[in-house]
Amino acid sequence: MNAEVQTTESRPARSGGRGARRALRSAPDLSMLPSLKRGLPLCEVMSGEQVERIDAASMDILEEVGVVFRDPIALEDWRRAGADVRGERVHLDRGLVRELISTIPATFTYRARNPERSLPFGGPHSIFVPMTGAPFIRDLDDVRRWPTIADLNMFHKLAHMSPALHSTAHHIVEPMDVVVSHRHLHITYSSMKHSDKTFMGMTTSPRNAEDVMDMCEVLFGRDVMEATPVVTGNCNGNSPLVWDEVMLGAMRAFCRRNQPVLCSPFVLGGANTPASVAPAVAQLNAEALSALAYTQVIRKGCPAIYGHYLSTVSMKSGAPMAGTPEISLMNFMIGQMARHYGVPWRTSNLLGGAKTFDAQAGYESAMTMNAVLHAGANYIWHSAGWNEAGMHCSTAKFVVDAEMCAMGYRMAEGPRWDDFDEALAAVRDVGPGGHYLGHPHTLQNFERAFFMPQLFDNNSIEQWQAEGSVEITERALAHARKLLNEYEEPKLDPGVDEALRDYMARRMREIPAVDALNNDH
Amino acid sequence: MNAEVQTTESRPARSGGRGARRALRSAPDLSMLPSLKRGLPLCEVMSGEQVERIDAASMDILEEVGVVFRDPIALEDWRRAGADVRGERVHLDRGLVRELISTIPATFTYRARNPERSLPFGGPHSIFVPMTGAPFIRDLDDVRRWPTIADLNMFHKLAHMSPALHSTAHHIVEPMDVVVSHRHLHITYSSMKHSDKTFMGMTTSPRNAEDVMDMCEVLFGRDVMEATPVVTGNCNGNSPLVWDEVMLGAMRAFCRRNQPVLCSPFVLGGANTPASVAPAVAQLNAEALSALAYTQVIRKGCPAIYGHYLSTVSMKSGAPMAGTPEISLMNFMIGQMARHYGVPWRTSNLLGGAKTFDAQAGYESAMTMNAVLHAGANYIWHSAGWNEAGMHCSTAKFVVDAEMCAMGYRMAEGPRWDDFDEALAAVRDVGPGGHYLGHPHTLQNFERAFFMPQLFDNNSIEQWQAEGSVEITERALAHARKLLNEYEEPKLDPGVDEALRDYMARRMREIPAVDALNNDH
Repeated sequence: MNAEVQTTESRPARSGGRGARRALRSAPDLSMLPSLKRGLPLCEVMSGEQVERIDAASMDILEEVGVVFRDPIALEDWRRAGADVRGERVHLDRGLVRELISTIPATFTYRARNPERSLPFGGPHSIFVPMTGAPFIRDLDDVRRWPTIADLNMFHKLAHMSPALHSTAHHIVEPMDVVVSHRHLHITYSSMKHSDKTFMGMTTSPRNAEDVMDMCEVLFGRDVMEATPVVTGNCNGNSPLVWDEVMLGAMRAFCRRNQPVLCSPFVLGGANTPASVAPAVAQLNAEALSALAYTQVIRKGCPAIYGHYLSTVSMKSGAPMAGTPEISLMNFMIGQMARHYGVPWRTSNLLGGAKTFDAQAGYESAMTMNAVLHAGANYIWHSAGWNEAGMHCSTAKFVVDAEMCAMGYRMAEGPRWDDFDEALAAVRDVGPGGHYLGHPHTLQNFERAFFMPQLFDNNSIEQWQAEGSVEITERALAHARKLLNEYEEPKLDPGVDEALRDYMARRMREIPAVDALNNDH
Repeated sequence: MNAEVQTTESRPARSGGRGARRALRSAPDLSMLPSLKRGLPLCEVMSGEQVERIDAASMDILEEVGVVFRDPIALEDWRRAGADVRGERVHLDRGLVRELISTIPATFTYRARNPERSLPFGGPHSIFVPMTGAPFIRDLDDVRRWPTIADLNMFHKLAHMSPALHSTAHHIVEPMDVVVSHRHLHITYSSMKHSDKTFMGMTTSPRNAEDVMDMCEVLFGRDVMEATPVVTGNCNGNSPLVWDEVMLGAMRAFCRRNQPVLCSPFVLGGANTPASVAPAVAQLNAEALSALAYTQVIRKGCPAIYGHYLSTVSMKSGAPMAGTPEISLMNFMIGQMARHYGVPWRTSNLLGGAKTFDAQAGYESAMTMNAVLHAGANYIWHSAGWNEAGMHCSTAKFVVDAEMCAMGYRMAEGPRWDDFDEALAAVRDVGPGGHYLGHPHTLQNFERAFFMPQLFDNNSIEQWQAEGSVEITERALAHARKLLNEYEEPKLDPGVDEALRDYMARRMREIPAVDALNNDH
């Protein structure tokens, strides 16, 4: 029984590449699934008129309230672009905003180190990307502690081996044993080295972002990067209505080299937005539009992604919550807005606020994933490991979430119809009161027809007790250990590897070893 | 902080009744929410043509393969109704099926003992009903054991106090300390006594069903029952394509007194259906249609509900699984079929296959709930407590599930727009870089704007540790104990109570005390 095999086998025609054909020949197999091509209808909770109402409210905010760009270069850029700049506050005419965002590509292909793992993106195509940014880990013994670079390497390996994860992201956990000022180099190298899937690039400072761009040039070459995105950055806004120098500088580094950033307002509903779902979306939409527009001021036609980090906050603690109904509703609405503008969009997946991997974490995570899939998000970030409101990445949760992504993927593809008539013939064969277990159609189709979770226990209580009454955390950690034992590194070209190491060595000589906090959600 | 209060307060206009107005005046409050009126778009994964394809396949099955009715009375009924009966196999012409089901009401009102708790049902209206039929309990100490009538009373009290549960159902757990042959009497009395919400009626034999009908007549009077449903039965089919004497006899008892049954094929995908999603739905649909049609042979115009118990089975154990992608897809498709026929429909909610209330249970349950809500189910059964594939009802899970229903309810209502302009004025007041926590709009709207789960912990790790590092199972059990301490019985009219007790006493004298197994999912 191997869930990945059946998942891959169910779509040999669609995936097309050599990887998929290879998957048909050998089992077990950890081949990456192709980009999800959505087969579910979109959950559109707003009428066309309501979409227009949000759009009009956001444009009013951009024109009348304006957005603060705390960055002299951005302010100068905006002046040149024809915006009404008063101090740090930029008032953006709706005509200008619409004109600027019209040049953002609706779809593109993410190029991976292994071209067979390149990914069509946007429109109906979505990709799953693991969480990033956790300052703590729950490790292979479920102990909560500060993470190291070895822990980060481990997560990059696990992401590499998870068929439904399309990316290794970047700093899944913060490697606390590496000084902050050198960290971005080691994180980027770990993503590049341990997997040949796509990955993300650090945006912790404009100069760090330039280093990421340089390392990408070493790996992919400038021509490839000019032709197609190879990496993704994230730029958080400071809601309400502020973008800061660090994020804007990093954005420029990415956009100038034709690489997309997620333009992500950081929204805590009721704290930095109005205490109401639709108005919160209107504000978030204004913030996202202002950054999306700026990407096109930086470089017209550069890919960019409508983003957000979105939560409602606990009245008790002020902390962000996960899986609440309003988060789902806002996801549905934001998806509609992004499609209204024809821009691909990012959301957050499988979020947990629980302190351990208990039932709370499960409920919250699955609530989030369903919202995201029905909302039709394209860049489905934080798809594995997120618990404790992002304060830790759980190793157990990481591998379960990765399997949940495979289940969500299957659901979001929609039903198959290719064996409909053949299977109905089986109904005639079996007839009333019979069973299908030995029927040839069943034997041929069972595995591809029904997803078999590996990490959910569906044995009887007696069997489960006989096997030691093991709950999911322990099962998941055993699975993670098994994966790591089986890991095979997809080797970098030795010349490229050496060039990357040389680059890092030079930059580490140039950059003073300084420790300080950073954050990137 | 009280989730129920805010939930109720957010819709004073819609609910209308005195209960809702009372909810506005006092807090904390456990008033039942009105029937959910769906505000989410339906997840329709099939085109109109695909719906026709399923319909045609099901009708072909009914005409050409036929359905076994293992019951002489039903066979005679079918002969008189003009069906082609060969032995026990009834071949149903599609014209006859369509004509019969056309008289099933698309909507009706469930009458509760407390008329303020009566419920519009069908079309956009849905109700949440707790699980039933568990042969084991995980109790207030999370110990797994055989349940007693006191345990069943406890669950009826908890259901009574859960605002999003619209019913107390019937045998949530099997009261093993009551002999099987008398059990239906005690179960029915417990539902009637401990809550004034709607409930379900036992269908464990035709005669037991008559007893339930008689007890309902004592409680409601024959005239009320002739005018409107007061109780719901469940009749499981034996897939593939068999209905048995017990279920059909119980169905007749309910239908003759104008009470609806759930016509529920019991489907284990790949075991008693073809190993393929769409053909499994075609078979299930044929089975449901055959029973729905028979309800109208029994009594034309009687309410009836398109039902199913639906799972895919583990290849490892043969046990039903929960939360798998195919279960979600089949729910979406069955919803479309039920709406195609204009019949309200039942599904199963918040199902878990885990042996304990661990993260597996959380993922599985939330996957199920999202599927059910996006599918637009009307009678949302098994909405609280179901774990271990229905083998036990978990007390901890029961109260968390009940809160999940409240969260799902809020999501499925869709976003509110009534304060849109007012909240946007707050954006202007606060401006870039400000915060909303002290703004008058926030203070007035926060509680009703954002759902605050009571049973999810969103404190910091430090606060959580200071409070004893309590995981959700322990928190939920403490909450259940608190609810039970606060429980106030909604007293039966003393004369009615005496009449019910007299009825039970007489029937217990008449029915030999016999123990045997029964099942009802």
